[in-house]
Amino acid sequence: MPEFRNIFSGNPLDREAARRRDESWVTERLDDPDALFLPLRDLTFPMHQEGEGMRLAWSPLPSDADVERHPPLLLGTSDGTARFAIDAAAAPDRFALPEDATFMDLRAAAPVLDADDAGIAAQARSFLDWHQRHGFCAVCGEPTRHVQGGIYRTCTVCPAEHFPRTDPVVITVVIDTERERCLLGRQASWPPGMFSALAGFIDHGESIEDAVRREVAEESGIEAVNVRYHSSQPWPFPSSLMIGCLADAGSSEINYDEWEMDDVQWFTRDEIDHSLGQPAAQLGEPGLPEGALSLPGPMAIAHTLITAWARGDV
Amino acid sequence: MPEFRNIFSGNPLDREAARRRDESWVTERLDDPDALFLPLRDLTFPMHQEGEGMRLAWSPLPSDADVERHPPLLLGTSDGTARFAIDAAAAPDRFALPEDATFMDLRAAAPVLDADDAGIAAQARSFLDWHQRHGFCAVCGEPTRHVQGGIYRTCTVCPAEHFPRTDPVVITVVIDTERERCLLGRQASWPPGMFSALAGFIDHGESIEDAVRREVAEESGIEAVNVRYHSSQPWPFPSSLMIGCLADAGSSEINYDEWEMDDVQWFTRDEIDHSLGQPAAQLGEPGLPEGALSLPGPMAIAHTLITAWARGDV
Repeated sequence: MPEFRNIFSGNPLDREAARRRDESWVTERLDDPDALFLPLRDLTFPMHQEGEGMRLAWSPLPSDADVERHPPLLLGTSDGTARFAIDAAAAPDRFALPEDATFMDLRAAAPVLDADDAGIAAQARSFLDWHQRHGFCAVCGEPTRHVQGGIYRTCTVCPAEHFPRTDPVVITVVIDTERERCLLGRQASWPPGMFSALAGFIDHGESIEDAVRREVAEESGIEAVNVRYHSSQPWPFPSSLMIGCLADAGSSEINYDEWEMDDVQWFTRDEIDHSLGQPAAQLGEPGLPEGALSLPGPMAIAHTLITAWARGDV
Repeated sequence: MPEFRNIFSGNPLDREAARRRDESWVTERLDDPDALFLPLRDLTFPMHQEGEGMRLAWSPLPSDADVERHPPLLLGTSDGTARFAIDAAAAPDRFALPEDATFMDLRAAAPVLDADDAGIAAQARSFLDWHQRHGFCAVCGEPTRHVQGGIYRTCTVCPAEHFPRTDPVVITVVIDTERERCLLGRQASWPPGMFSALAGFIDHGESIEDAVRREVAEESGIEAVNVRYHSSQPWPFPSSLMIGCLADAGSSEINYDEWEMDDVQWFTRDEIDHSLGQPAAQLGEPGLPEGALSLPGPMAIAHTLITAWARGDV
C-alpha cells in the first residue's frame, strides 16, 4: 500500500541533527541576519494570505529580544537558512511581520494553511509548548535549561537530561466486513451527531496491536482482530503521534464505558457515504439536523481511515 | 500480512482502565490478601525455574511494607486477582518469594522468560522506572504524588497532571532489491562485528514515515523510499515503543555521521543468512572471529525485520 500523507506530516525543514550538537554553530545561526523567526503568541501562529492560501509569517529577530528569558528553538534550516520558533513575549510588538498578518490557532488554520507550513507549525507548536511546561527537573525539582537550540533540557543541579516527549496514540476503525458496517464512537463534549474512530494512548508494555485491542475493548466491548497499520500523523495538541489502524470485528455486541464514551454505534457504508458528502461538523457550531451523522473533517486521520474503508481502498 | 508478535508484547493482564478510576477500589485491591506483588530491586526482577523456563516470582504484601514511601503500582488483574509492582525497598527481605528465586536483569532474562511474563515485566519496568524519576512537577518544581494505582501523577501544588511517557522509535531495514542486499549499521560501543537496523526517536511534528526517512538519511546518507510498517514492540529500557519498518533504497552511496555511527554497510543476503545461522553476539562477551558479522538475537525487533527480509517474507 502506498504511503498516505496526512496533514502535519512532511515537514520540509532539515533538522540539522549533526550540526546542532555544536552549541557555537547554533549561536552563530542566532546571530545570522538572514535567520528567520516564527513568533508564537499563546501557541497561536502569525499567518498571512499568499496566493490562494495562507502561509506562516516569519520575522528577523528584533535587536532587543530577550533571548535569555525566551530562548529561540531551532526548528531546522531551509536552503541553508536557520528557522527558529520563539515566544512572541520575547519582544512584544517588535517582530517585523507583514501588515496583513494575523495570529491564528493551528487547529482552525490547518485546513487553509500551506501543507509544508502546517508541518513546520506542528513541530513548532509541540516543541515550544513542551519547553514552556518543562522548566523544572522531574527527578529533583530544580530548574532546567535548554541546550542545542532546544533538542533537550538539562537539569542545572543533578545529571538528568530531559527530552521532548511524543505520545503515541492508536486510532482505529473496526470493520464488520460481512455486514458492510464500521464501528464509531462519540464523546459527550462533541457536537451532536458527531462520531469518529476509537482512540487512546499506548500504555507501557504494549505493542501498537495490543493497544488497539485494549482500547477498542474498553471503549466499545468489541473484539478487534486482524489489526493492520494504515498511516500516521503528528498531532500537535500538544504532542501526539496518531497511529492509524484498521481492524476486523471479532464480535458484534456493543457494550461501552459510559464514563469514557457518550455513544458507540455501527454505521453502514451508505450512512458513511452520505455523511462524507456533507460538510463536516465543527466544534462550537450549531448542531446538525436531528439524527444526522457528522464525521471529522479531512484534517483528522480519522477522516483518512473512514474514507479509506468507505472507498474500498483497504 | 498477519501480525507478528515480538517479545514483550501480548501482556495478558487486564489493565482495568474503568475500575481503577475509583481510588477506593484500588485501595481494596491493596488490602485483598489474594493480591500479588512483584518486588523489583534496582529494576531487576525476582524469577524462578518452572518446568523448562523461568517465571516471575510474586509475593503477598508484607504487613510492614512502607506503601506511603513506596506506593505499589497496579499493573492490572489476572482472573480477578490484582497484580502490583513495588520497589523491594518497601520491605527489604520481607517479601515471601520461592526459595530458588533470583533477581535478574530483564534484558538478560527475557530470552528464557515465559512470553506472557516478559510482557508483564516490560510493563512493570517502564512503569516503576518512570515513577521513580518523576517525583517533582516539571511545570513548577514542587513534589508530585501518584493516583489511581499509578496511572498518572498530580502536582501537590499546581494543577498539572503528569502521565507516564512512552517514546516512539523507528527502526528500519533498508533494502536494495536489485542487488539483494540490506543496509545495517553499528555503534562504537557494540561488540566487534555486530551490526543492526538503523533506529532513532521520532521527533515532534513527524509521521512514522517522515522519521524513517530522516533517521536513515542522518545515519547512512541513503534515501529511504517506499517505507512500510512491519510490526512493533514495547522496549522497556526505559520506555520505548519500537516501530519496525522496511524501506527500499533510493540511492546506494553510504555517507554516515561518524559521531553517531561507527560503521554502516550493505550486506548481501548470503552474508545475512550465514550470520543468522550463528549464535548472536552478546554485549560484554568476547568478540567474534575477525571480520565475522554478528546480528542481534531474537529478542530484538531488528532480528525480526532482518529475518523477514532474509526469508523473503516481506
